[in-house]
Amino acid sequence: MSFEKTMDKIVSLAKNRGFIFPGSDIYGGLANSWDYGPLGVELKNNVKKTWWKKFIQESSYNVGIDCAILMNSEVWVASGHVGGFSDPLMDCKDCKSRFRADKLVEEHMAEQGIDDVSADGFTNEELKDYIEKNNIVCPKCGKSNFTDIRKFNLMFKTFQGVTEDAKSEIFLRPETAQGIFVNFKNVQRSSRKKVPFGIGQIGKAFRNEITPGNFTFRTREFEQMELEFFCKPGTDLEWFNYWKDYSFNFLLNLGANKENLRIRDHSPEELVFYSKATSDIEYKFPFGWGELWGIADRTDYDLTKHMDHSGEDLNYLDPSTNEKYIPYVIEPSLGADRVTLAFLVDAYDEEELEGGETRTVLHLHPALAPFKAAILPLSKKLSDKSMEVYDKLSKTFNVDYDEAGSIGKRYRREDEIGTPYCITIDFDTLEDESVTVRDRDTMKQVRIKIEDLEKFIEDKLSF
Amino acid sequence: MSFEKTMDKIVSLAKNRGFIFPGSDIYGGLANSWDYGPLGVELKNNVKKTWWKKFIQESSYNVGIDCAILMNSEVWVASGHVGGFSDPLMDCKDCKSRFRADKLVEEHMAEQGIDDVSADGFTNEELKDYIEKNNIVCPKCGKSNFTDIRKFNLMFKTFQGVTEDAKSEIFLRPETAQGIFVNFKNVQRSSRKKVPFGIGQIGKAFRNEITPGNFTFRTREFEQMELEFFCKPGTDLEWFNYWKDYSFNFLLNLGANKENLRIRDHSPEELVFYSKATSDIEYKFPFGWGELWGIADRTDYDLTKHMDHSGEDLNYLDPSTNEKYIPYVIEPSLGADRVTLAFLVDAYDEEELEGGETRTVLHLHPALAPFKAAILPLSKKLSDKSMEVYDKLSKTFNVDYDEAGSIGKRYRREDEIGTPYCITIDFDTLEDESVTVRDRDTMKQVRIKIEDLEKFIEDKLSF
Repeated sequence: MSFEKTMDKIVSLAKNRGFIFPGSDIYGGLANSWDYGPLGVELKNNVKKTWWKKFIQESSYNVGIDCAILMNSEVWVASGHVGGFSDPLMDCKDCKSRFRADKLVEEHMAEQGIDDVSADGFTNEELKDYIEKNNIVCPKCGKSNFTDIRKFNLMFKTFQGVTEDAKSEIFLRPETAQGIFVNFKNVQRSSRKKVPFGIGQIGKAFRNEITPGNFTFRTREFEQMELEFFCKPGTDLEWFNYWKDYSFNFLLNLGANKENLRIRDHSPEELVFYSKATSDIEYKFPFGWGELWGIADRTDYDLTKHMDHSGEDLNYLDPSTNEKYIPYVIEPSLGADRVTLAFLVDAYDEEELEGGETRTVLHLHPALAPFKAAILPLSKKLSDKSMEVYDKLSKTFNVDYDEAGSIGKRYRREDEIGTPYCITIDFDTLEDESVTVRDRDTMKQVRIKIEDLEKFIEDKLSF
Repeated sequence: MSFEKTMDKIVSLAKNRGFIFPGSDIYGGLANSWDYGPLGVELKNNVKKTWWKKFIQESSYNVGIDCAILMNSEVWVASGHVGGFSDPLMDCKDCKSRFRADKLVEEHMAEQGIDDVSADGFTNEELKDYIEKNNIVCPKCGKSNFTDIRKFNLMFKTFQGVTEDAKSEIFLRPETAQGIFVNFKNVQRSSRKKVPFGIGQIGKAFRNEITPGNFTFRTREFEQMELEFFCKPGTDLEWFNYWKDYSFNFLLNLGANKENLRIRDHSPEELVFYSKATSDIEYKFPFGWGELWGIADRTDYDLTKHMDHSGEDLNYLDPSTNEKYIPYVIEPSLGADRVTLAFLVDAYDEEELEGGETRTVLHLHPALAPFKAAILPLSKKLSDKSMEVYDKLSKTFNVDYDEAGSIGKRYRREDEIGTPYCITIDFDTLEDESVTVRDRDTMKQVRIKIEDLEKFIEDKLSF
């Protein structure tokens, strides 16, 4: 790689080509919120579709669900979010800037080359000690005159109904997982599934982060793809490893470069108290390693909490052995926006061509590419025939149509948005019902019958 | 139809078979919120996919977008939602119940057989007059001792950041449309689209309704599928009719019964002041006619409002004529939950079979059915072969697998959830690599080669 892959380049391409725009742009935006444009929504939808295909459709173990974002507040009392879902905040007394103490510590660790440890498990006291011992100063003004660390709850609060009082207070869900736990019994009963089985969900979640940032990597509104896999206690570590491998292979099969991925196992000190094992799959972004996927053995913690708090019996009765138990849960939880960004970054390439020209190309897996193909008539006189091909293919795939500019320019435009196949319609097409298909990555061309196009493209989409 | 189609039957089937569960069920629910179970999420996803296919993928005019739910509050000032998006509320002074005055009036109208008029355009004064003149009484206690009517804003409010003050106040979007208007320029520029073109979006919206109800028909959290189609002023009524027909045909092509659908054109008095024409596509639910789709000619109202409020030039420059104008907008806006419910209700059937037995069957279009097929081994000894067929088909379709109970019982279960094809694996299958395929609607059976199954099902999915 003879070029520098920077976030600036990614953000700029994303905006100019319609992948991702700043949210509420004409009003000056809204604190790191983002909108997916015409190409971005296709890319992200493809990411969601591939996840659903592999984790729900093709898996005979798993079923899907789609729960409301607004839930009864008791859900968040039971899950511990009302009591304990908070960030450790700290102000600089001099310049009045506000920081997350754990982030200051982690940034300091990273500077020291310690990038395999996180400050997640630190108490306020431990954070304060670390900051003092290492003489960490305010990144804004350089002083070290901090307030005490205090907890700030990350849930967005709103009111349902006409009055604004504690009784009508509800929260935007901070994760999709709890909707699954609350529905465990309803799903198990209605689907007649037997343990082991899983319930997966894709949906929005909201966290009132103090310092969102790094483009779409950390935003207050984000989308999750979570699986909660219920299994018999004792088999949990086996399933933990199964889903960890399954998840890692998912990324590799969709073309992610292995050298940009790593699995980080949480150390015993870092593990939350109820978890037997947790691993993060991380991606090497231009701004550093960042978590995409958290795979955790959550034991029977969640179901037990909900059983105690709701009074509903959430035990599972094994029909073959008559054993009664609360299933253990393996949770592979993936950020849809993060993994979309990772695929975008990973696919980005600048290639030197013969003659010294450079092309920007997104080497996206065809299953992820926004357009599967682009229809490019060599002359405007070929519009009718070209639209015929467009109409035919667009019944099955999302395809582009472009008749503006030289064919070379059009190839460059399609390369830059990751379109794997450019289909050129020329005057011979009118005679032989064939088209020229150019491969994005090899730039090689082949002649193909129009009637064979669908099958040709279809075959490239499997993963 | 010799049976009564009631909402009770639909709600009960939805819960028992895993289409739709009460939200936060184990905590006693949350005011008419609902979760989509394993079959419901597939049904609703199929509804969304078919809309996207017809309105975005296959249309060379339109592109998609996916905007954040949380937007800069100025968006809602410009759109008029902060100032005017409210319900007319009224209390009974005697029993303290709270009502929407417009709903009381509409219910009274319906009782009088006036079901083609809505009270949407009524002022508070007109509502009060109607209630007094017609002696409408409190539905709870029967008295007619009402307070004055006052406005209650329907937007859910929350706070972003660590302080709760007016500056940090933001809203959950009450509609997806404004995200499209705000992005008009970014989309037009990046996609190089020329007017006429449209931008479509599927996403959640939230309205703090006082009286949600009728199952998933009116909920506080709901999902919209909206297209904003930008065209040259003067061509707008033509495009209005185009999209009205396109929308109506969408429902018919997916199998909705014509006699349960009607188009209601808004009368001049009912039209909001900026709209040149508005039509609703309504469905005849067991609880009465309800709006699924609103198609409106919104003129240049929205873009003008945002141009004035943001200071951003939202004019369009026609590259061929050099004319500069603000495009007119045609908006077909469809409720994803409502149309999913309509398809569910419409498909529901109870059929008398030979021998006096009754079967419940959902005649869902195969493109909408949660499972496209069910694999039913005739003996547990055939599990291996059956799983082979399951693995093969599940690469392309969502398919069920059921080996419990008599084949008749399994047929009934699949009928009840709308699975169009039951695939039986018998001992002959091991010899001839063929299976028996039973059609849900005709109950007729055919013998088909395993290798031809995919194509057989694929062909039934087109619409």
